Amino acid sequence: MRIAVDGMGGDNAPGIVVDGVAEALKRYTGIQIVLVGHKDKLKPLMKSSGIDKDPNLELVHAEEVVYMHEPATAAIRNKKNSSITVAASLVSKGEADALVSAGHTGAAVVATKVKMRMLPGVDRPGIGLIIPAKEGAFILVDAGANVDSKPIHLAQFALMGEAFARFAFSTLRPRIGLLSVGEEDSKGNELAKGAFKILSDMPINFIGNVEGNILYDRNAEVVVCDGFVGNVMLKAYEGMAKAAMHWLKQSLTKNTFRKTGALLLKNAFMELKAIGDSEEYGGAHLLGINGICIIGHGSSSPRAIRNAIRVAEESVKFGINRHITRAIAEAEIGI
Amino acid sequence: MRIAVDGMGGDNAPGIVVDGVAEALKRYTGIQIVLVGHKDKLKPLMKSSGIDKDPNLELVHAEEVVYMHEPATAAIRNKKNSSITVAASLVSKGEADALVSAGHTGAAVVATKVKMRMLPGVDRPGIGLIIPAKEGAFILVDAGANVDSKPIHLAQFALMGEAFARFAFSTLRPRIGLLSVGEEDSKGNELAKGAFKILSDMPINFIGNVEGNILYDRNAEVVVCDGFVGNVMLKAYEGMAKAAMHWLKQSLTKNTFRKTGALLLKNAFMELKAIGDSEEYGGAHLLGINGICIIGHGSSSPRAIRNAIRVAEESVKFGINRHITRAIAEAEIGI
Repeated sequence: MRIAVDGMGGDNAPGIVVDGVAEALKRYTGIQIVLVGHKDKLKPLMKSSGIDKDPNLELVHAEEVVYMHEPATAAIRNKKNSSITVAASLVSKGEADALVSAGHTGAAVVATKVKMRMLPGVDRPGIGLIIPAKEGAFILVDAGANVDSKPIHLAQFALMGEAFARFAFSTLRPRIGLLSVGEEDSKGNELAKGAFKILSDMPINFIGNVEGNILYDRNAEVVVCDGFVGNVMLKAYEGMAKAAMHWLKQSLTKNTFRKTGALLLKNAFMELKAIGDSEEYGGAHLLGINGICIIGHGSSSPRAIRNAIRVAEESVKFGINRHITRAIAEAEIGI
Repeated sequence: MRIAVDGMGGDNAPGIVVDGVAEALKRYTGIQIVLVGHKDKLKPLMKSSGIDKDPNLELVHAEEVVYMHEPATAAIRNKKNSSITVAASLVSKGEADALVSAGHTGAAVVATKVKMRMLPGVDRPGIGLIIPAKEGAFILVDAGANVDSKPIHLAQFALMGEAFARFAFSTLRPRIGLLSVGEEDSKGNELAKGAFKILSDMPINFIGNVEGNILYDRNAEVVVCDGFVGNVMLKAYEGMAKAAMHWLKQSLTKNTFRKTGALLLKNAFMELKAIGDSEEYGGAHLLGINGICIIGHGSSSPRAIRNAIRVAEESVKFGINRHITRAIAEAEIGI
């Protein structure tokens, strides 16, 4: 098993990425890592991490980097030797089994579409993200790979999300909900109404419309929506979680009395922080691509990178793309 | 000053509404309330609240009620004598200065559009909602009055939001942001990109794209978006806030040690709950309608109803609709 890791992707790359790779090499056996990026930057870091001579690590040089602020399509077109493009090529050529990147999400989407192509019958990729809920977790597809989706794309996201839920939650018949602005069947915009009709006729466990408060009242394991809406929802969750922690901290440090109480509860607060911590889930799956691609948060820690590598390996073993391809073929919903 | 209150609107109507009206009558002077709804239901409640003989309260009978699950347009068409339609008529006939309803939001939108009509130059109403942020608060327009908006509608929401921010925050030049999936100018779907162009040319303090984490990193006082997206974001905030409180409670009651700490922090937690409590803001403004309409949350408490009545009065005095009409005329962005 060989996992290609984009060494230059992420807010704190390449340092954090090399640290994550070092953790993975130490912890997991049977994984070979191909680290892709500029050798002058990566070699010294590999040396100081003590992994420069690790037999399970290979360095593949890539001259360029796609930076966070660059428009994705133009960057991939102009930088043929960027780390993300070279890493995606390794998978397409069969020299790696999966790709992990914490870099520019849009660039990863474009590079994998160009180099790996789509799975048969899938029109657009969708980012499948596991989000912790009050009890358990749910999968959001699409968390932001595409905007301006058509109903048929949401139907494909449903099948990809179903396969992902079987992999991630070991649920055979995951409940699939359509994100909308009310639970009644008639609620929604043109896209949601169109998707509702298609989803109702599909051989899935479709439970109808769900709302953004699904985090609290979880009634579906998979929630499908357009990537613009999904990304807004995701950022809203993050914003509220951060604001809540801020308010909590502010309120608990107001006086000595409270500070004492807060000290007694230190473990409880650490626990609370860990619940909202998505690092354990190891990044998002870019679903629909003909190859495994795990996308990490831009601010990924070494632990997040390490977990993303583990998830990539598990996903290859599970054969998620075989499941998706079969489901798409059986549902006969291609355009 | 006469405020029409939809006596039958809300999850716990009419009881909660009558209680809220009683609180308002006791607390505010100079406001006359016209309570609209079925007399057989309202009269006994008015009597038990001791307000049945209040000279500042008038009861107007309405035979029908629009229930939460009904499709809005059909309900307003078929139930000519529903409490929300009768209340909206009172405002359109000049027999009341403003309308307050905690009932079916869609029904309130349709009823006010039909009875009060739109302000000159405004094509669609938008729900303007004040949302507490890490520091202060911001206004979201549209929180769910319309779906499938066009760029021009978002431009109109910006002007309506600006007027609302001047009223609510006493800010002369509120910063206006466009909700999108990245802060770079080029990010967004077709709608956001189209709206970005129009907003950039308008005589407003437009700061460009903002994301759903604005709650934490507040950099705009007004955020405009399509009502589908705005409603999803709002529900996401609610879901995460509820889930966070749940996790906190669960974590703090795990053992006696923690329970003791939690006891010391009881006031702090009450404070925390109050921050997220939007009842003080007294509901959302339905902007763009030729008349003042305040929409309460379906689960409004008597205090929320009372505050909505106060906000309706203040909004009439401020003359928010004069500000909107002038801004729309000056911007020359009508269709």
